[in-house]
Formats: sequence, structure tokens, C-alpha cells
Amino acid sequence: MKIIIVGASGTMGSFLSKAFEKEHEVIRADRNSPHVKVDITSSGAIENMYKKTGAFDALICTAGPTYVGSWKNLTNSAFRIGVEGKMMGQVNLVLIGQHYINPKGSFTLITGALSHDPQKNFANASAANSAVEGFVRAAAIELENGIRINAVSPTVIENSPHYFPFFPGEIPITMKQLEYGFRKSVFGSNTGQIIKPF
Amino acid sequence: MKIIIVGASGTMGSFLSKAFEKEHEVIRADRNSPHVKVDITSSGAIENMYKKTGAFDALICTAGPTYVGSWKNLTNSAFRIGVEGKMMGQVNLVLIGQHYINPKGSFTLITGALSHDPQKNFANASAANSAVEGFVRAAAIELENGIRINAVSPTVIENSPHYFPFFPGEIPITMKQLEYGFRKSVFGSNTGQIIKPF
Repeated sequence: MKIIIVGASGTMGSFLSKAFEKEHEVIRADRNSPHVKVDITSSGAIENMYKKTGAFDALICTAGPTYVGSWKNLTNSAFRIGVEGKMMGQVNLVLIGQHYINPKGSFTLITGALSHDPQKNFANASAANSAVEGFVRAAAIELENGIRINAVSPTVIENSPHYFPFFPGEIPITMKQLEYGFRKSVFGSNTGQIIKPF
Repeated sequence: MKIIIVGASGTMGSFLSKAFEKEHEVIRADRNSPHVKVDITSSGAIENMYKKTGAFDALICTAGPTYVGSWKNLTNSAFRIGVEGKMMGQVNLVLIGQHYINPKGSFTLITGALSHDPQKNFANASAANSAVEGFVRAAAIELENGIRINAVSPTVIENSPHYFPFFPGEIPITMKQLEYGFRKSVFGSNTGQIIKPF
């Protein structure tokens, strides 16, 4: 299977790349990738990425910038970080990618517990995550040729302990649990699901 | 109570204006209002509206443009209709309005069943509705001075029968049910809730 992983140099993306490339052709894409460069806040850059990769079987996205910080500084312009990044970045990966993906291929996007379980400083991520989840449910009934779409929604992940203080009482998930979530989406048959691998 | 209703000339907004102005001071705001003009896709216009209304006790929004139409035409730029309209329009009504609202005031936004119950042609609304719902949950734990925020999420409404064919099997809610939903948010004590008045 030919799998594009967007955000491949990040904590989640690099773990998934290593796990999946044992048995699959993995294309590592990232904002600073030496392999395939893509800035998901630009629809032109996304189109260029797909032109470069050509047809593929699965797209995994683990990238999604949002504004993290004080509510007092959350203005219209700060809010745009998550709108252009985690939200429209991922929406455009699908809207554009559907013209390149093979029949029965799949898109797996990243959201997170903040969509339904808010924490202070993360309102922008709550909105972006929720937007992506709503989009996933809607896109699942629109995509043709057996193309599926799901999102994986983790809590905090064990390899990012610097986030723990912002998520009091949140039980971290292991990298292996995260991998299971993406496996369920990519190699299973579900569509329109928000997969919580814990 | 001084209540601003944004979208006051629409089907929902005009019904709510009539219902609430029996007992309250209602300010009818709308894109084409002869009373208070506001285009919620412009953060400057929102700021101007609040400067004009001054301090208030409740903000109700029933306005929220989205792209409705074929998935094939749902490009990045079509998607922006819902991003700027129903999503950021409502987010900005809160981010800006929090500096004008009275202590213990409330914001009540509009979402809809599409956030969790998609229909063909409405993927943009699914994403925008979900974004607003995620934002409402997050804003509820950030807003200070006892300020509350909720969303009302109707299905199709009885006074908009032109939508019925797009929502097969969806039981329409009555205008009175819709009013109850907004009453619960404005005059109750809940916050961070997605109110389904059916």
C-alpha cells in the first residue's frame, strides 16, 4: 500500500512512518521534509504535493497547527492559525486529494479530545478539531469509489510530556495505542468515524 | 433584559424577536436591518455593531451563511462561505462581544443537526456547526464574570419547508420548540451546552 504521511517529522508522524514502512511504501511529507515538502496552510502546496506523489492508497495527516495560549489573546487573527492549519489544512488535503487517491483508498485525519473535552488555552484547537470531525462525518457520505475517511482523536500522548500540565488528570495514551487507531482507519473498513484509541 | 438578535429578519430571528420583545428590549440586527446593520463576516462590522448597541445582557445569533450544493463544487473557496459566515462570524460575535456584554450575560449561537447527522450537499455546514459547538464548549470554561455561552441545534424547522427535501425523514421542529431552546439558554443557567429543543 502506498501511504502518504503528512506531518511525518513530528512526534506522531515519525512514529507512524517507522511503524508502517516495515510493510508499506510510506511517503514522508512535512513542512520541512527533505522527502516531500508541504505546507498544509497553502492549497497550492497541497496540490503540488499530490502532483509529486501521484496516485496513492492512504493519506494520514498528523499535522495541524492551532493557537495555544491565553484566552485574552485569542483574537480573530490568532484564531486563524487553527482555521488555516488544523481545520482547512486537513479539509483541503481531502478536497484536493480525492482527485489523486486510488479507488477504495482512505483519508485519516487528526483531531483530539479537546473537541468535546475542553481545556483552558486550547479553544482554537477545540473549534478546529470539532470542525474536522463534522467534516469527516459529512465527507464520508459524499466521497465516491469506495473512498473512506476517518479521524483519530487521541488524548495527550505519552511522548509529549510537555503537554501534560495543560491536561490535568488526562490519562496519556501510548504511541502503540495511537498506532492502533490509525491502523483501524487505514486497514479497516469503517468510514465517517472518530476513532478514540483508548 | 437587553437582547441583541443577530439575523433578526430571517425565519428564526424574526420569530424570536417577536416572542422576546413582549417582555424585553430587543435590538434587531441584520445584514440589511433598518435598525442595526451588521455583516458578521466582517469583524470590523461586528465591533461597530457593539459600539452602537453598547452594553447588553444577551446576544442571540440565528445568522450563519454556509455553502449548500454539490460536493463536486465544494472547493477551498466555496468552503470559505461557512468558515467566514456561520463559523468565524459567530466566533467573532463572542470574542468581540465579551468586551461589551454585562456580567452574567449570555451568548446563544446557532448550529444544527448537521454537525452529527450529515446530509448530502451540506458538508460545509457540518464543519461550521461542529466548529461552533467545539468553540462553545471551550469558551464556556474561559469566559469570566459569570458570562455564559450555549448553542441551539435544531433539525429542519417547520417554517422552512423548502429544506425538507434535503433532509429525508428528519422530523421538523416547531417554531415554538425553537423558541424554547433559546429561552433555555438565555434565561436558564447552563453554559457550554448544545441545546436540542426536541
